[in-house]
Amino acid sequence: MDPLTYADAGVNIERAESFVTRLKKQANRPGHKQMWNAAGGYASIYPLAGDTAVAVTTDGVGTKLLVAEELEEHGTIGIDLVAMVANDLICVGATPTMFLDYFAVGTLQDKLADAIISGIIEGCDQAGMILAGGETAEMPGVYEPGKYDLAGFAVGNVTKKTLITGDRIAPGQKVIGVASSGIHSNGLSLARKVLKGNRAAMSKLLKPTLIYVKPVVELFNSLPSSITGMAHITGGGWRNMFRLSDKVGFQIDSPLPIPDILAEIGKFVKPDEMYRTFNMGMGLVIIAETHAEKIVETFTLAGFNAQVVGVVTDKAKTLTVPSLKLTIHD
Amino acid sequence: MDPLTYADAGVNIERAESFVTRLKKQANRPGHKQMWNAAGGYASIYPLAGDTAVAVTTDGVGTKLLVAEELEEHGTIGIDLVAMVANDLICVGATPTMFLDYFAVGTLQDKLADAIISGIIEGCDQAGMILAGGETAEMPGVYEPGKYDLAGFAVGNVTKKTLITGDRIAPGQKVIGVASSGIHSNGLSLARKVLKGNRAAMSKLLKPTLIYVKPVVELFNSLPSSITGMAHITGGGWRNMFRLSDKVGFQIDSPLPIPDILAEIGKFVKPDEMYRTFNMGMGLVIIAETHAEKIVETFTLAGFNAQVVGVVTDKAKTLTVPSLKLTIHD
Repeated sequence: MDPLTYADAGVNIERAESFVTRLKKQANRPGHKQMWNAAGGYASIYPLAGDTAVAVTTDGVGTKLLVAEELEEHGTIGIDLVAMVANDLICVGATPTMFLDYFAVGTLQDKLADAIISGIIEGCDQAGMILAGGETAEMPGVYEPGKYDLAGFAVGNVTKKTLITGDRIAPGQKVIGVASSGIHSNGLSLARKVLKGNRAAMSKLLKPTLIYVKPVVELFNSLPSSITGMAHITGGGWRNMFRLSDKVGFQIDSPLPIPDILAEIGKFVKPDEMYRTFNMGMGLVIIAETHAEKIVETFTLAGFNAQVVGVVTDKAKTLTVPSLKLTIHD
Repeated sequence: MDPLTYADAGVNIERAESFVTRLKKQANRPGHKQMWNAAGGYASIYPLAGDTAVAVTTDGVGTKLLVAEELEEHGTIGIDLVAMVANDLICVGATPTMFLDYFAVGTLQDKLADAIISGIIEGCDQAGMILAGGETAEMPGVYEPGKYDLAGFAVGNVTKKTLITGDRIAPGQKVIGVASSGIHSNGLSLARKVLKGNRAAMSKLLKPTLIYVKPVVELFNSLPSSITGMAHITGGGWRNMFRLSDKVGFQIDSPLPIPDILAEIGKFVKPDEMYRTFNMGMGLVIIAETHAEKIVETFTLAGFNAQVVGVVTDKAKTLTVPSLKLTIHD
């Protein structure tokens, strides 16, 4: 089998990016000037009162839904849904408060619906958020029986003190990686194509996304100025780091272990494509100006595997992994 | 043809309501106690700083999507999407600020995507909101080619001063109705079933939902204490008024004209079912303690058709329309 790419799996990233560019241009209004900018654009931030702003973001779980469907296991997909938005929200320096779900089905089935909601509530608990509302839409004709979609919406608050602008990211700062649990919720179209028919591997795909909120919020309180950038590693894989700054690059000297499931997929996909699509063992990246060891310790105490994985360089828009002789450009 | 009901169209409201009841019970956490209560539960409100809170809500456009699909006209469905959440947000006394969309497709098609986004932006302009972010998800396998779904998230701010709690609703207060443009975005499953094959009528179904934000926000500023309740008439039709208070009832003496499209549907559906499903000419209901005429005038000047339609009564959970000899219970 020839090595596969994300485009082979039917997802055209360039078309999507071109659409988003057009959209942003068309949507631009004077009101956008009031918004606060944050590194990576992981959330939208609007000032509310005094020094405090509200941060919001939305996402889905993509085609991980189809894995849940194939395995008929819907109890953890809600954790993924919360993870996708909660982990985004912390990247701007926000403390998540409320989660809302949009759950659309062809015909509402109690067992399926209860399983999904259990996962969402478990995810909210892990993120320290409350499930504050949502919409359950029954749409016969849009979704076939048994099919559904999920969107999540996370709300948090952020102050000027914890806001992560990315402006202070500079060469020499430490890059801290926090381990992922597996594939998380990105690159599933490609993964499903590669692993088709391999039920044991499919089951590993379903492992829920880790939620990094609690140790991060602890760090917002204990070390509010140490963190200069934070990247949730989602669609686009390690390129997510480029979102933090266009003035620097990254050198990853000590990568975290690659989860089995990603190693399995890596047998069929070129390394470059792997790092441009998957989290490759690292679900969250933190750039630290100071206290890198203390940050690592905070994650370790919270039960996460974390370590200093590399350093910020002056090679703008360039990421290198010397041990793999791998270079990725923005 | 026998008269049709909403259940005949494949939508089981009781099952959905039972699910939401279970969900709320299971999701309950201490954090919910911090939330502000508002009449009708149209949005979730979490205190942010001092006297200010953030209000959020989510919704979709339901099977109005299928009408857009059938007619291949996708330019206004985005207006409906914004309307559904923006009109909900004002019902708690919030001023909408940000809108985020979740747009999921099988395969991204430029023409379709651009049409949808144009509608969303038009809706945001009508609501005085900015399109602050969103997610465009390409999910081959979940959605067939040409199929898509949309969810909208609206964010606003609310203060103790404008918060509409419903506590001050009392018998004798005026009920003001603001006209709808047609079916808006609710009851479409039933409507489609009734009007199947009638292309002229289908086209009328697609008329965009009116967005009531601007005059209402004007009233929050000019008459902050006159409004004691506000109901966006969505799924459940006129029963939405019951959401405002379980201590009072409503008598509608001078209903607004019924839009042609709803009259057409009414040929096949019993009156009771019509009022329990559709807006019946009234997209927004306002309960006013004072200044009813001034409120009507504010809507009129903003280009809406509005009038005092009735009065709050002491017959709890009972809505009467004497001219139609119609009584609806909660």
